[in-house]
Amino acid sequence: MPRRLLLLNGPNLNLLGFREPERYGTTTLAEIEDTVTKAAADHDLAVRALQSNHEGVLIDALHEARTTCAAVIFNPGALAHTSIALRDAVSAVSLPTVEVHITNIHRREPFRHHSYIAEVADAVIAGAGPLGYVLAVTYLAQTLERA
Amino acid sequence: MPRRLLLLNGPNLNLLGFREPERYGTTTLAEIEDTVTKAAADHDLAVRALQSNHEGVLIDALHEARTTCAAVIFNPGALAHTSIALRDAVSAVSLPTVEVHITNIHRREPFRHHSYIAEVADAVIAGAGPLGYVLAVTYLAQTLERA
Amino acid sequence: MPRRLLLLNGPNLNLLGFREPERYGTTTLAEIEDTVTKAAADHDLAVRALQSNHEGVLIDALHEARTTCAAVIFNPGALAHTSIALRDAVSAVSLPTVEVHITNIHRREPFRHHSYIAEVADAVIAGAGPLGYVLAVTYLAQTLERA
Amino acid sequence: MPRRLLLLNGPNLNLLGFREPERYGTTTLAEIEDTVTKAAADHDLAVRALQSNHEGVLIDALHEARTTCAAVIFNPGALAHTSIALRDAVSAVSLPTVEVHITNIHRREPFRHHSYIAEVADAVIAGAGPLGYVLAVTYLAQTLERA
Amino acid sequence: MPRRLLLLNGPNLNLLGFREPERYGTTTLAEIEDTVTKAAADHDLAVRALQSNHEGVLIDALHEARTTCAAVIFNPGALAHTSIALRDAVSAVSLPTVEVHITNIHRREPFRHHSYIAEVADAVIAGAGPLGYVLAVTYLAQTLERA
Amino acid sequence: MPRRLLLLNGPNLNLLGFREPERYGTTTLAEIEDTVTKAAADHDLAVRALQSNHEGVLIDALHEARTTCAAVIFNPGALAHTSIALRDAVSAVSLPTVEVHITNIHRREPFRHHSYIAEVADAVIAGAGPLGYVLAVTYLAQTLERA
Amino acid sequence: MPRRLLLLNGPNLNLLGFREPERYGTTTLAEIEDTVTKAAADHDLAVRALQSNHEGVLIDALHEARTTCAAVIFNPGALAHTSIALRDAVSAVSLPTVEVHITNIHRREPFRHHSYIAEVADAVIAGAGPLGYVLAVTYLAQTLERA
Amino acid sequence: MPRRLLLLNGPNLNLLGFREPERYGTTTLAEIEDTVTKAAADHDLAVRALQSNHEGVLIDALHEARTTCAAVIFNPGALAHTSIALRDAVSAVSLPTVEVHITNIHRREPFRHHSYIAEVADAVIAGAGPLGYVLAVTYLAQTLERA
Amino acid sequence: MPRRLLLLNGPNLNLLGFREPERYGTTTLAEIEDTVTKAAADHDLAVRALQSNHEGVLIDALHEARTTCAAVIFNPGALAHTSIALRDAVSAVSLPTVEVHITNIHRREPFRHHSYIAEVADAVIAGAGPLGYVLAVTYLAQTLERA
Amino acid sequence: MPRRLLLLNGPNLNLLGFREPERYGTTTLAEIEDTVTKAAADHDLAVRALQSNHEGVLIDALHEARTTCAAVIFNPGALAHTSIALRDAVSAVSLPTVEVHITNIHRREPFRHHSYIAEVADAVIAGAGPLGYVLAVTYLAQTLERA
Amino acid sequence: MPRRLLLLNGPNLNLLGFREPERYGTTTLAEIEDTVTKAAADHDLAVRALQSNHEGVLIDALHEARTTCAAVIFNPGALAHTSIALRDAVSAVSLPTVEVHITNIHRREPFRHHSYIAEVADAVIAGAGPLGYVLAVTYLAQTLERA
Amino acid sequence: MPRRLLLLNGPNLNLLGFREPERYGTTTLAEIEDTVTKAAADHDLAVRALQSNHEGVLIDALHEARTTCAAVIFNPGALAHTSIALRDAVSAVSLPTVEVHITNIHRREPFRHHSYIAEVADAVIAGAGPLGYVLAVTYLAQTLERA
Repeated sequence: MPRRLLLLNGPNLNLLGFREPERYGTTTLAEIEDTVTKAAADHDLAVRALQSNHEGVLIDALHEARTTCAAVIFNPGALAHTSIALRDAVSAVSLPTVEVHITNIHRREPFRHHSYIAEVADAVIAGAGPLGYVLAVTYLAQTLERA
Repeated sequence: MPRRLLLLNGPNLNLLGFREPERYGTTTLAEIEDTVTKAAADHDLAVRALQSNHEGVLIDALHEARTTCAAVIFNPGALAHTSIALRDAVSAVSLPTVEVHITNIHRREPFRHHSYIAEVADAVIAGAGPLGYVLAVTYLAQTLERA
Repeated sequence: MPRRLLLLNGPNLNLLGFREPERYGTTTLAEIEDTVTKAAADHDLAVRALQSNHEGVLIDALHEARTTCAAVIFNPGALAHTSIALRDAVSAVSLPTVEVHITNIHRREPFRHHSYIAEVADAVIAGAGPLGYVLAVTYLAQTLERA
Repeated sequence: MPRRLLLLNGPNLNLLGFREPERYGTTTLAEIEDTVTKAAADHDLAVRALQSNHEGVLIDALHEARTTCAAVIFNPGALAHTSIALRDAVSAVSLPTVEVHITNIHRREPFRHHSYIAEVADAVIAGAGPLGYVLAVTYLAQTLERA
Repeated sequence: MPRRLLLLNGPNLNLLGFREPERYGTTTLAEIEDTVTKAAADHDLAVRALQSNHEGVLIDALHEARTTCAAVIFNPGALAHTSIALRDAVSAVSLPTVEVHITNIHRREPFRHHSYIAEVADAVIAGAGPLGYVLAVTYLAQTLERA
Repeated sequence: MPRRLLLLNGPNLNLLGFREPERYGTTTLAEIEDTVTKAAADHDLAVRALQSNHEGVLIDALHEARTTCAAVIFNPGALAHTSIALRDAVSAVSLPTVEVHITNIHRREPFRHHSYIAEVADAVIAGAGPLGYVLAVTYLAQTLERA
Repeated sequence: MPRRLLLLNGPNLNLLGFREPERYGTTTLAEIEDTVTKAAADHDLAVRALQSNHEGVLIDALHEARTTCAAVIFNPGALAHTSIALRDAVSAVSLPTVEVHITNIHRREPFRHHSYIAEVADAVIAGAGPLGYVLAVTYLAQTLERA
Repeated sequence: MPRRLLLLNGPNLNLLGFREPERYGTTTLAEIEDTVTKAAADHDLAVRALQSNHEGVLIDALHEARTTCAAVIFNPGALAHTSIALRDAVSAVSLPTVEVHITNIHRREPFRHHSYIAEVADAVIAGAGPLGYVLAVTYLAQTLERA
Repeated sequence: MPRRLLLLNGPNLNLLGFREPERYGTTTLAEIEDTVTKAAADHDLAVRALQSNHEGVLIDALHEARTTCAAVIFNPGALAHTSIALRDAVSAVSLPTVEVHITNIHRREPFRHHSYIAEVADAVIAGAGPLGYVLAVTYLAQTLERA
Repeated sequence: MPRRLLLLNGPNLNLLGFREPERYGTTTLAEIEDTVTKAAADHDLAVRALQSNHEGVLIDALHEARTTCAAVIFNPGALAHTSIALRDAVSAVSLPTVEVHITNIHRREPFRHHSYIAEVADAVIAGAGPLGYVLAVTYLAQTLERA
Repeated sequence: MPRRLLLLNGPNLNLLGFREPERYGTTTLAEIEDTVTKAAADHDLAVRALQSNHEGVLIDALHEARTTCAAVIFNPGALAHTSIALRDAVSAVSLPTVEVHITNIHRREPFRHHSYIAEVADAVIAGAGPLGYVLAVTYLAQTLERA
Repeated sequence: MPRRLLLLNGPNLNLLGFREPERYGTTTLAEIEDTVTKAAADHDLAVRALQSNHEGVLIDALHEARTTCAAVIFNPGALAHTSIALRDAVSAVSLPTVEVHITNIHRREPFRHHSYIAEVADAVIAGAGPLGYVLAVTYLAQTLERA
């Protein structure tokens, strides 16, 4: 099993740190990818980071991870609520997967309360801000150790 | 503030003038882009026109408009009814935005009655045919003058 | 065909400019009627303006317009969401009709998202403020020219 | 008990014979009132006929019928689907009441399938065209005889 | 066109006059069939009367009526609310059809408010008691005269 | 601020004391208006009392109260459940408002459980019979004292 | 009152003991009818047993029981969830009735959770396997003794 | 009949005056109990006051009130929206009962709009602040006088 | 396996025989516990009987039964419809369990039609009155014999 | 395993070729049965063909097929949407089953979009006209070869 | 008309034969494309095969097919359930279209039961495995012959 | 601010390690409380641990935490889905709060997908097993540092 994590971020997350800082904070996506890479290194894990606004690109990346990564940290952004195709990709790839949301989606509009991805992910972390990604690393490291 | 409008058209609108002319009329998208450009010029505004069948391309275009355009005229086509990711892009970009639909979506199937974009756009114009785009220019010109 | 528009405003719109100015602006209904009359005059169209808080009066006015007006600009206010009788009147009268809302009703409470009138109007303009009425004149003038 | 029927018609029924004749036929409301009056006369019953586009006028008329009429034939038009106030008036007046609809409302849009009035009327006749009013007379005459 | 009506009654209507007389009255089905036959004779129409508790028998009877009857009076009983197969039979047979219910189904449990048959029948009469069948004869006689 | 209360009653409340006394009691509206006037006088408040079966008249009265009254006691009757226009009038007028229902609407049919007025009123009193109006006076007197 | 129970079984119950034994067990319907007959004999009650896959036959049997039986044990099978006609038959027959289901229908698909029969039966026993029929005998014997 | 009122307050109401004062005010529960006791004394009524965060304790208290109190003032807090067990207790106890809510629950989240208690209480007072309890005393005193 | 049954009764069942005797009968809970104890003794089974109005106490009792009882007879009262925590306790304890309701909950308000407990119980008996508990003993005795 | 297919057609399909030819085509059921028999013969399979308007007859036929047929081609007509009893029969019989609809039911009324049979059939073919039955033969022949 | 079929496969279908073989089988997409090409050749039809995980690419391919293909075989994968844009593309292109699903989507999660594509396709084949594509060729060949 | 965390566990969590180990694992609650205490100590935080099956006890504990704790880790168990009273307690207490679920509730029954607590908690961690509590400590430690 490759000791590499896929860190996958969906639509609009490239704007992190730029848009609505009162909601999403001032940390940029680059900073998050950095922090995650360091946290993973502590567990002897590499990180492949990708962000895209294209559902198809995210699916392709998940497919590729089947043979190149050991686990997935996935913030699908708004696609969590609408994309069954992404859900099927997560499910087909069949790697340990944590869904991360920076904000607590349960405090927002009702259409953000349901996630298709959550139904196939192993764990879900929402509302912990950028730290949520690091918690996901901790969880996946433990999971991979046990497997 | 750049004196440029983004004129953004979503899926299937490239077929305007070709498909179902009894519903969508015989004006082509090229002609509409032309007319809008002229109408904008009357208000001393340039136009950047883009059509794509790819949700991701539309999101990218909106992101780019943040720093390069002053306002947005957006016909999201059927994505209006299904894409929360596009809604978040419109909301993150935070420019004056008019949603335009060529047909009156409220006279069509129930699944076309709700638009995620309408909930974050400033104004909505539906059913006015190609003229709807020109009315949007008038509205945005006034809005920009006041800002 | 008489070259006259019916400009019809429903319940509470007599308070325009007085109530909740941060939502509805400071323009009064009298000023709007004035502006619309002038805009219509540019297209050689007269205007018959009427506001009422009584559904029955609005229906009567629509009925009368059948033989005395060429088109209708209609802001039904909150009756848009509840009155099938008004919808039937619009439909029976069978003139070109634009539904106008000063605010973008799709950004407000869910019970304001559906309009019975929109399902029988030709075009719908929402959220453009008082300018929405003027855009409606532009649209109807073009429609009448073509008929 | 006064030997008089209230024949009450709601919004838009004044247009009968004029609007959408392919749906509502060519018989005018005046002709219907005439026919009903004659049919009632056969049973020694007078008729008080009223049509209004105002919900309040219809309620007032029902209230007045409490002491001046023996039964009610009521075509509430579109108010059937929306007016609980009318329902309460019918219920409070407590006279034998037949709800009549010229068209078969169950073949039309879903929002016409439910009638608040039907829940308090004695009988409902829909889709029999103008003859429906005459059938209502027959029914009420029999009911009054038995009372 | 054969001058014969099919008088079709569905499940449990054989108990008319026996069960719950406070709701359904004391008139038996035999008496109703008699009355209908006489009323039809006044219009020079014969009657074929059938009651069954079997949906299949009712469908068969409707099919047979295609070539042997001119119109249908149909009280489907509780099958009105559940049988799309009966609806399709009525629709396929394509004869003038009146749906009759002895009680006003709109005053009863919600699951009795919707009728699949009403959506394909020409007219619906509910709550007029046994007289409802006679009113149906009057209506169909007029319809057949006009055809 | 004028020391006057608007006591507004909606459709069918003119029948109080006459219709369904087992539900609504035997007190007439005139008696209620009397009692309220006396109760208000104890707090040095005058009362303007109005009842109408016309939604439009109720809206007009609320509008007029903006400058002539200090608070509103409003029993909208069945319009509570259906009229967004009345809700907007209450909201636009922006006076302290108590919604009163003589019966406990929560013990009745489901369509009486929701009130559009309750969502903009300050307080709601239901099921206390005619006394409910007097309790409303007590509440409003306290509110006005504090303001 | 005749000392006889109707033991009525609906569609597919003739396959008991043959189909899906892991769900329905290996007891056949003949064995159940035998056991019930013996249990009833202990209370000096005869049993008329009938199984049919035809809704109409079940309704006919219930009708006949009105004068020939004292109580009913009824396993309507899947018709419990769809047949209002059967419900009306149970209700019209008006004998003490126990609805029995071999499996616990509340642990199965949602469309099996609601039973039209349960709303008119006296008691419901589900999930007790073939013993459920015997428990029904015990209950009905007690009920008949008390009547 | 004992001249004693049960003043019952449910979960979180012990925090009154401490939590979210901008919503719930600064009056403490002790002060309210005091005021109610004084108001009741004016009508020669004693008060038994109890607050608990335990549904079971509230039910026990209602049961005990059956024989020791004449009426109940009940603010069930959030249990109003979820507890059928409390509803059954109120209903079983069968004393005159007023449900009181300090805030107007109809202006808050949708899940606070429905109250199981309201369906069995005699009267409901919401949004009148601490005064609501005093109004309840007035109502119950009148009710007890009449009984 | 201990030869002891837990007989567990939920909120308000302590009032059996006292409240609404026309619905719940005149048998008291003490009498029921007695009868069940005797019926169990016939099968050589002891009974531990507990009633509580506190959800938590019921859960604690179920937990304790894991090691001290062989099966459970559970009338959760109104908690059946609202308590997922109780459902989880039943499920975690994993003993043969019969849910008993004295009345036929399917003939009552819609909110009583669904039971969370029924989805994890083995069998459900409703509407058989106090006898239902005895039938449950019969069923569990048979189940335990077979195990 | 018997080399015989059951070709089962439900209500109203006996009218194929006669009713609404613009929707259902001009091919008769006899012709379809012929074509299917020939197509099956190519795979060395016999065909037992049955059509009935009686749900019970269809269930009986399915039961009989358990031991006499190898697979089922089933067009349940409108019963697809309403009959759980038929679904259970298909499921109990447990043979390879293809559900066929001549029209594309997903283009028709919403109540035709859901099929209880589809949830237990192996494959579903809709909208392919009479050819759909032949495609079902091809599929089943392949399935039987593999088994 | 070009004698070429578009064989279009949506998201995740590139994994056919690799993911969840117990559900989707072991046939790869390449093998399916091969088989379809051969089956089409028997009817003198060429095949253009395309698979993409990108909605936009699928729309582009459908647009291109307007002038280059005679018919479409389309397995939209999970996009069937969510993409109105794809539906509009199918509808705009207006070629004979068969929707194919390898599994029987009606036996899976509820969110897979509805397909936007099915509402505009000519025929739908689900659950026939890879053979479904070949059946689609048979159907389209027949359709093209007749056109 | 006290440097103490409240570690609160709701109904049935005392069975952790004993019930359904394949779902909940073999770690006991005592072990979890231990681990959390150690993890907290690393951040110089004490832990007050409490588990209860009583909603009221949980509310009391939250109230007490207002002045004695700095943050809350809360696994409400099944009460998450039903208790608005607990939600209000969390909200009133107004401390940083993380909701933890051992299993991924989004993969389980639909009634476990919604949590009232999630709507007022800061962060939510589900599906990470016992480790979820430790991740919550990490998050809260960071939050408290920043405050």
